[in-house]
Parts: sequence; C-alpha cells; structure tokens
Amino acid sequence: MHSLGNLAGLRELMREKNLDAYVIPSGDAHANGYVADYWRGREWFSGFTGSAGTVVVTAEKAGLWTDGRYFIQAAKQLTGTGIDLYKSGQPNVQEYTKFLADNLPQNANLGFDGRVVTAGEFSKIKDALNEKSVVYSYQDDLIGQLWKNRPSFPVEPAFEHAPEFAGALASEKLKSVRAKMKEKNITAYLVPSLDDIAWLLNIRGRDIPNLPVVYAYALITDAEAHIFIDPAKISGLSAKLAAQGFSFHAYDALPKFLITLSTLNLYYNPAKTNTLLAKAIPKNIKIAKGDDILPAIKSVKSEAELANIKNAFVKEGVALVKTLKWLDECVADSRPLVEGDVVRALQKFRREQAHYLCDAFPTISAYGENAAQAHYNSGETGAAIKPEGFLLIDTGGQYLDGTTDTTRTIALSEPTDEMKRDYTLVLKGHIALSRVIFPTGTLGSALDAIARVPLWEIGQNYNHGTGHGLGYCLSVHEGPQNISPRPNSVALLPGMLLSNEPALYKESRYGIRTENILLVTENQKTAFLSFENLTHCPIDTKAIDSALLAETEREWINAYHRRTFETLSPYLDTGEKAWLEKATLPL
Amino acid sequence: MHSLGNLAGLRELMREKNLDAYVIPSGDAHANGYVADYWRGREWFSGFTGSAGTVVVTAEKAGLWTDGRYFIQAAKQLTGTGIDLYKSGQPNVQEYTKFLADNLPQNANLGFDGRVVTAGEFSKIKDALNEKSVVYSYQDDLIGQLWKNRPSFPVEPAFEHAPEFAGALASEKLKSVRAKMKEKNITAYLVPSLDDIAWLLNIRGRDIPNLPVVYAYALITDAEAHIFIDPAKISGLSAKLAAQGFSFHAYDALPKFLITLSTLNLYYNPAKTNTLLAKAIPKNIKIAKGDDILPAIKSVKSEAELANIKNAFVKEGVALVKTLKWLDECVADSRPLVEGDVVRALQKFRREQAHYLCDAFPTISAYGENAAQAHYNSGETGAAIKPEGFLLIDTGGQYLDGTTDTTRTIALSEPTDEMKRDYTLVLKGHIALSRVIFPTGTLGSALDAIARVPLWEIGQNYNHGTGHGLGYCLSVHEGPQNISPRPNSVALLPGMLLSNEPALYKESRYGIRTENILLVTENQKTAFLSFENLTHCPIDTKAIDSALLAETEREWINAYHRRTFETLSPYLDTGEKAWLEKATLPL
Repeated sequence: MHSLGNLAGLRELMREKNLDAYVIPSGDAHANGYVADYWRGREWFSGFTGSAGTVVVTAEKAGLWTDGRYFIQAAKQLTGTGIDLYKSGQPNVQEYTKFLADNLPQNANLGFDGRVVTAGEFSKIKDALNEKSVVYSYQDDLIGQLWKNRPSFPVEPAFEHAPEFAGALASEKLKSVRAKMKEKNITAYLVPSLDDIAWLLNIRGRDIPNLPVVYAYALITDAEAHIFIDPAKISGLSAKLAAQGFSFHAYDALPKFLITLSTLNLYYNPAKTNTLLAKAIPKNIKIAKGDDILPAIKSVKSEAELANIKNAFVKEGVALVKTLKWLDECVADSRPLVEGDVVRALQKFRREQAHYLCDAFPTISAYGENAAQAHYNSGETGAAIKPEGFLLIDTGGQYLDGTTDTTRTIALSEPTDEMKRDYTLVLKGHIALSRVIFPTGTLGSALDAIARVPLWEIGQNYNHGTGHGLGYCLSVHEGPQNISPRPNSVALLPGMLLSNEPALYKESRYGIRTENILLVTENQKTAFLSFENLTHCPIDTKAIDSALLAETEREWINAYHRRTFETLSPYLDTGEKAWLEKATLPL
Repeated sequence: MHSLGNLAGLRELMREKNLDAYVIPSGDAHANGYVADYWRGREWFSGFTGSAGTVVVTAEKAGLWTDGRYFIQAAKQLTGTGIDLYKSGQPNVQEYTKFLADNLPQNANLGFDGRVVTAGEFSKIKDALNEKSVVYSYQDDLIGQLWKNRPSFPVEPAFEHAPEFAGALASEKLKSVRAKMKEKNITAYLVPSLDDIAWLLNIRGRDIPNLPVVYAYALITDAEAHIFIDPAKISGLSAKLAAQGFSFHAYDALPKFLITLSTLNLYYNPAKTNTLLAKAIPKNIKIAKGDDILPAIKSVKSEAELANIKNAFVKEGVALVKTLKWLDECVADSRPLVEGDVVRALQKFRREQAHYLCDAFPTISAYGENAAQAHYNSGETGAAIKPEGFLLIDTGGQYLDGTTDTTRTIALSEPTDEMKRDYTLVLKGHIALSRVIFPTGTLGSALDAIARVPLWEIGQNYNHGTGHGLGYCLSVHEGPQNISPRPNSVALLPGMLLSNEPALYKESRYGIRTENILLVTENQKTAFLSFENLTHCPIDTKAIDSALLAETEREWINAYHRRTFETLSPYLDTGEKAWLEKATLPL
C-alpha cells in the first residue's frame, strides 16, 4: 500500500530506461488465474487486491483497469495512490490499449515485463498502437527492481500423483498428446499451462494457493518431451519420469532452448504463452497457433479418474452435510457466528476426509446482501450471521482424488414470498439443466438458456455463465468446455465435468445460487447424452415454493434427496444421519 | 440433359484455353439463393436440378459436389452424364477444393466464371491449392459459350414499391446506411445483394421466380450513391430516384467503375461479392471486409413496415383457412387429390387477396413419407393424397405488404399414438419458443435448444435450424439473425422477424413441422424481449395428445386459436367461419 512512493519510484526507473509508459498486468508467466505471491506485483504496486486488473503508468498519468466485479473495491483501495480507476466495459471508458494510443507520442518507448504479458495481449497492444511506430521493451521487470520484500519464487517440491489416483502413466498421456499433434501436422508443442503439465506428468505441487501445481513449462516434440522446472522441485521424481521419455531442464532455460529449434513445425497458444517465450521462437521455423491441445484431452475424464472423482464427491458431501448440520445448530442455539466461521467449519470437516489437500478456492460464505456480490470474499471474519435471511456458501475442496465445487443457499428463517419465488425459480433452472437430454455435437452455449428461462419469465437474469469445466485435483475452472451465453465451439463429450449454477442477485438485499457438478454421460434411454449429478448435498427445501414446481421437478428433487441420503448415510453418525434424513424428506 | 456432349464440349474449350480444370458452381453474380434461368448453367450442364451443387471438370475426371438434401436426386440425374457424384459432408468424401489439390499438377491452369464464384469461395480454392503455384483464369464463361439456347438475361422493368408500402424514402434509407458507414470509418460500400438494393431503392422486380427483385449492384459512398442496372429496367423510376441522390450506370459498368476509385476506404463482404468485382478493386485503396451493412438495417422492420406485414399475415391467414377447409372437404368427400392440387388451391385463394404478387417459394405439399424430406418438391402433380396419415404443407406468399411463411401438418385420419406423441412434442417445442422471454443481447443461437428439448427427451432431433429471418416483400430467408445451433453473434432486436419451425422426420414414414412467424417485441411484463405471433392459421388439434401438454401449453393453444378466429372471421363467409370455429375449439 505504498503506491504513492511506488509510483514515483517507477517513474524514476522509466526515466532511466527512457520509457514513455509501463504496463503492469495481473497474472504470472503462465497466464494462470491463481498465482503465487511472487507474481502479485500489480497488487503490491497499486494496493488493489482484486484478481483481475491492469495498471498503466505514463510520466503524467497512472490508471488501473478492472471489471465490474471490482469497481467498488478498487475505488476504495486506490484512494490516495495517485492511480485513477478506469471501469472496463462501462460506456465511454476507453480500454487501456486505447488510452496508450491516445497518450503516447509518435516513436514512443513502451515497457512491460514480457513474462506476464501474453503474446495474444501483446498483439492487441500492437494493433492499438500500429500508427505510433512504438518501440517495445519487454525484458525489464521494473516492479521487481522496486519491490524490496518481494516473496521468493516458490520452492516447494512437486510430489507424485500416485498411480491409483492418476489412472494412466505419464508415458501413455504423452502418447495421446502426440497423436493429436500428428492430426494437426505439427512436430513440436509448447505447453505453458501449469495444470496441463501437472496432469501430463502425474505430479502435483504447492506453488499456488488452492491450485496444486508447480511452476514449469513443457516442450513436446514428436520424439522428445522437455520439461523446464527447478531441478530441486522434481529431484525425487525425475528418474521415474526420465524412464518414461521426459528430460529435464532449468525453469528459465526455455527461451534459450527455443532459439536452438530449427526444423520443427511448432504449435502454441498465444492466449497462454508469454511474450518473452513467443519472442524467443526463431522466425525461420514453421509456426501454427491455436487453442491448447492438452485441455481438450484432459477435459474428458478417464474411467479411472471418474471412479476417484465420484468418491471425492462422496467425501465432500459428508463434509458439507456436517457443516450444514453444525450451521443449523448454531442458528437454532443463537450462537454468535461470523461468515469466516463457516469457512473454518468446512475446512475442519474436510480435514477429516481422506486425501484432502486444501480448499479449491477461497470459500464464499456470504450472508444477506453480501451474497449479491457474486465473488464476495469474507476474509477471516466477515459479517455477523443473524438467524434470518439467506446465507450463500460456495465452496470446494482439493482432494488427491478430485476437485469439488458446490453452492448452497440456506434460509436461516422462514423466507418471504419473494425470496421463495426467487429461490424456486433458480432451482427450476438448475433442475431443467440437470434433466436435459441432448444430441452428440451439442455445444455448451446451446444449453445455457435452459437454466435461465424460469428467471427470464419474471425479467431476471444472472450476469455470469451457467457452467464451467472442472479439473481433476487441479483447477476448479478448467476448459475448454463451458455452458455460457458466449458462443463456444466446443461440443460436450461423455466424461466432461460441468458446473450447473444458475443464480439470482438482488443488490443490497440477497443472492441465491444453487450449484452441483454434472458429468456428461451417454443417456441410457436414447442414443443421446445426458448429465449425471456428482454432487451429494441436500438442497434447502425451506425456501421452495412447491406451487411453482411441475410434478417432474418435484420428483427430481425427491429423487435427488433420496440418492443423497442413500449415498452419504453410511458415512454419518446417528445424529448426522437423523439431520440428513430430515433435510432430505420428500416434498 | 445433354451432358455427355456438354462434357466433351467443355473439355475441348478447356484444351483451347489450356485449362487443366474448370469449376462450375451454382448461383448468380450476386450470391443469391434463388436465381434467374439465365444463371442455371450448372443445372443445364450437368442435368442436376438441385439448388446447391458445384461441378468440377478436369481432362480425365468430372464430379458434382452436393449436400445431403440431394444425394438421391443427384445420383438419379447424373446417371449416364459422365459426372461422378461426391456426397459433401460424408466421411471420407473430399471437398472439391481438396479434389483439385489432389488432381491438379504443379503450375496448373484453373478456370471459372468469376461472376459466379464469390471472393470468399475463391480464397478457399487458393488456400487449398497454395502449394501448387496455380494460375487462375476467371474471365471465361465457358458454359455460356457452349449453351446454345441459354435463356436471355431478365429484362422486365423494376416497379416502385409504393410509399404506402415502403414506409420510408430511399433517401432516408440511404442516410441510415451512411450513418453505419461512418461508424465503421468507411467511405465506400459495395452492395451486391439484390434484396438489399431493392429495399434501399424502394423498388421491386420480376427477374427471379419467388423473389421480387431486379439484377443490380450499388456502390454507396459518403457523398454519392451509384446504381448499376440495365437502364431499360429503371427508366420509369430513375428521375425520382436521381432526385433522392442516386445516379445510374449500366449493369456491367461496375468493374470499370471500381478501377477508377482512388481515395476511398472501401468496404465489402467477400461472401457475397463475386471474384470479378473483387479483382477490379484497385490494390492501392484501403479495403475493409466484413458482413454486409444493409441486412442489419433492413432486418429491423420499421413501424410502417410492421403495420403492413401484420396485414399481409391476416390476408395469408384467410387464404390458408380457405385452403385447409377445401382440403378437409376433399378428404371427407374422397375426391381424388394429388400434392400439386394443394399448391394450386393456395395460389387460387392467395390471388383473391389484395397485393398478392407470387408465392414466396415453391410450396412444399408433401404427403406421407414424402414429408420426411425436409425440402420435398411435388412439382405440378406429385403423389396422390389418400385419406390417411399426415400431409405437410409449407407455403408462403409475396404480397406488396409482406412476405409470409407457414407450415402446418394435417392429420387426414385418426393418427396412431406414436404420430400423436411426435406431433405433440414438436408442438411443445414450438410453444416453448413462442412463449420465451429473454434479455436484450440474447443471441438467436441461445434460444434454439428451447424448441428442441421436448424432442431430445425421446432421443429425436431435426437436422436444420429452428428459425430464419424473413424479408419484407423480399427473400423468405433473410439474415443476419436466425435461431440455429450454429453460433451466430447477432443479438435479437425488437422489429426482427423469425420463423419458429421445429420438426420431426421419420424416414420412409412421415414428416411433422409446425411453423409460425414471430416478431421480436419489447415484453410488456418485464424490461426484456419476447415474441409476438404474426401467423394466423389453426394448428390441427386432431393429432394433439393432450396428456402430454402442461396447463400453460394448453392455454397457449387455446389463446392462439381464439385470436386466430377473432382475427380472421371478419374476412370469412358463413361456411368458412363455421369451419374455422370448429378448427379452433378449445382443447
């Protein structure tokens, strides 16, 4: 939070380097959503703690661009820093690339740390500035020079994702990657994404909170597989992996390695590959660009992975039921309670389960009007929870055998008619998507409206996608599939996981979201596809207005609850079982 | 049907011109779906009468590429012609561009008539052949040289679309085009599409069956508006239009005119602009390519247009009711009947209505298993209609005050349970889409599944989009909006028209389709959008299985029928009114 000083310091460095502007984006060298503290330079510099935002500094001006999720928070955190807030996506607010085009002179020098700006983002900058004859300097990490107590680069070792969890050898996975490379007629594939590498190598790590990966790059050719990683991180595993065809290099050796490439036909994804790497690719080799190859492979979970994942969801269900029972008792006993207590309760009950590593993301425990912010974070304490209104809990765990993600909205007292209607309409959308049967080749974007129609009927909507993919002891948001109004050309395939999370947010009042994880399966009755629900957790029936439910919807809820009870009760004690029985009584 | 001779003749011309291959696509110089007979060169050459197909001829081989709609027909019609059938889209069938890549030598000469190959299609050909150093010859219409009795180029004059129909002056429409050009920062816009030009100039014509347009091009600049058209076609109207800022040139003067352009920033759509024109654009001017500008403007119907269109749909409803009553009586009296009789009956009853020009497309009157072909054409006679099973009628009229398009499936006897279920599920999809309320910004592709979900539940689907746009006394298929599983980035706007035509086809058995035209409107209850039904025509209730309907669906049908009766009965005689009253009795 020293950004007045930071700003002066940066401008001094810019003058030394003769730079007219400097760009500081969020993110790490792998275009990762979650990052290690080492990479939180934009946060340190600006004082703004949101996950998305880009700072641009010129000699006269400084601005932070962030999206609608963070307008209020950013305005607060930037006060007194000398950095102006630019609300991305609002009418008449120019994007930072346009700001640069308007504020830079001809032949300007623009600097950034090429590790944290992707090649795709750099293209956008160049397009916006194409009439300015700008000289780009992408080698200088000026923030690193200013940042005295910068956290060190993560050094914890990778560990093996044991064969009983991984389900397939790294050498077998490598073979499937090479088969796809052959289809695309390419002989080398640059992999910057940490979850892709962890999945491929059957390793996990502790470099990033909530995301069990290690910092590494991979370069896969038709004959070799090069991994660029701190040797200390992989020392215990490299021999085993070498035997499967992998060779190891220092983490920062990739740019120099790329320069030595000659005859290869190289493929990479500019949206994920940083500028420093893209610039290191020799100009005389054949290059093809496009979406990454590994996500499409790892998004279709194998039989072995699915068996484990289903087990992880049972364990998660047990932890969720214990938490909800505890919450019920707290409220009944009028025990003082804050939002953070729910986060801790979940962690406590998850720790009782086998193979639990950490939470899959900071749990959202949002009471009352706080839940109207879709991405609310209570922190350690948060608001006091009173025995009235809605509490929204969106939470997930990282287990060695699966990543989970569940949202429930709990009525802490008898809801009003409006609350019941809203809750029931969200539930109707959730049920409609759960029940849909659809032909092979259907895109996720084609199904999105199915979850919205009940809300649309009363003129309501939610401003986010209905579903995201899910990793396997990896990222809780994993592509390429999703269920969103934005066109996405990825067809849903058996073995893919998707969240189903319609919602309704009423500003300053409450938020409602109901989320289960769905598995795409072959439908038994037809030659089509349908979803299997993996999440086992009661849906609060107190807020349901049964009059709004069709008979098929009522039956769906009762069947879901019957299965939830049958699945979880063997792992519950008598008191917990009694609580769950009551929570899953038929409507 | 002389194509053995045609093939030899073409190969002789190819030898003279030193061409290794010659490409003969469908279509005219304006990338139009419907074309004048003058442009049916591919049909004349090959004997294949389908609307879509491309012939490729080399010294040794000759092939026709067409899609699934025409496999059976093309196989029959190509027999004995020396032209092989290539089934586009089937596994292991190469596209014609790949065929060329495989069959042409290095430095080959490839010929085609540059008027009938779009710039976009030419790009695809060049991409496929980019390693062959091919020389392209696009100036020679070899088919025209062979075709002795080629129909003459259409010469009928354009006529004014009178002010009471047009609703706005051509000069006003020109202003709105220029406003969009300014937004796009372009100073010239090349318009090849005949319906765009007809709408802009408030003219209609008789150059093409079913599509009331005249052959013309337009080049609109920020200061001028040049129309390229046979002077004889426009002589009666050019003075009035000249006063509104339009100047006129010979139809074939556009290429030479393009060459004279110098300082303009020119915009055109390669998917609609032919190669001859694209090649005539000087290389030294600034060019931008993209979707056409006019379709987006004319797709949002004005208040004046909508008032007329609604009236046209009432007239069409009267003609449809009279036809259905006549059909009912034919069946009841066991009169001998063929599919073509229904087409003639519709024309007869349409001719009784004011401002009727012609049919909007060849009526599909498809009895029994014929209806399983989505694009069946009975011709003059067609199959005999017996008093059993389903008859599918898909028909539309061109009126000066609107273009209509309606499909009804009529049960000629008591349907089986399976037929009733299928019919009712199609209707449920139709109702669901009719009733949907959706936020501003929703894409048509997001709504497509809503009409399919009931069919998907029993593992059925239909292999075409759910809805297409509709012109105003213009093309019955008009973009840019549609409702389709294919991603389309066009948001639905108030004033747009869309068909709603879910269907079910059971090969060799029957076809079911129910189609109304919907108008996007602002929803009264919410701040969202919804649809208003413009089509007034009873939906056959004999085939409805009421047990499959939700109460809201039953209510929708009853309300639709009540409104149909109220709207049409003032225009019916006593007998017709009695028939309609019975046909619209509540469920």
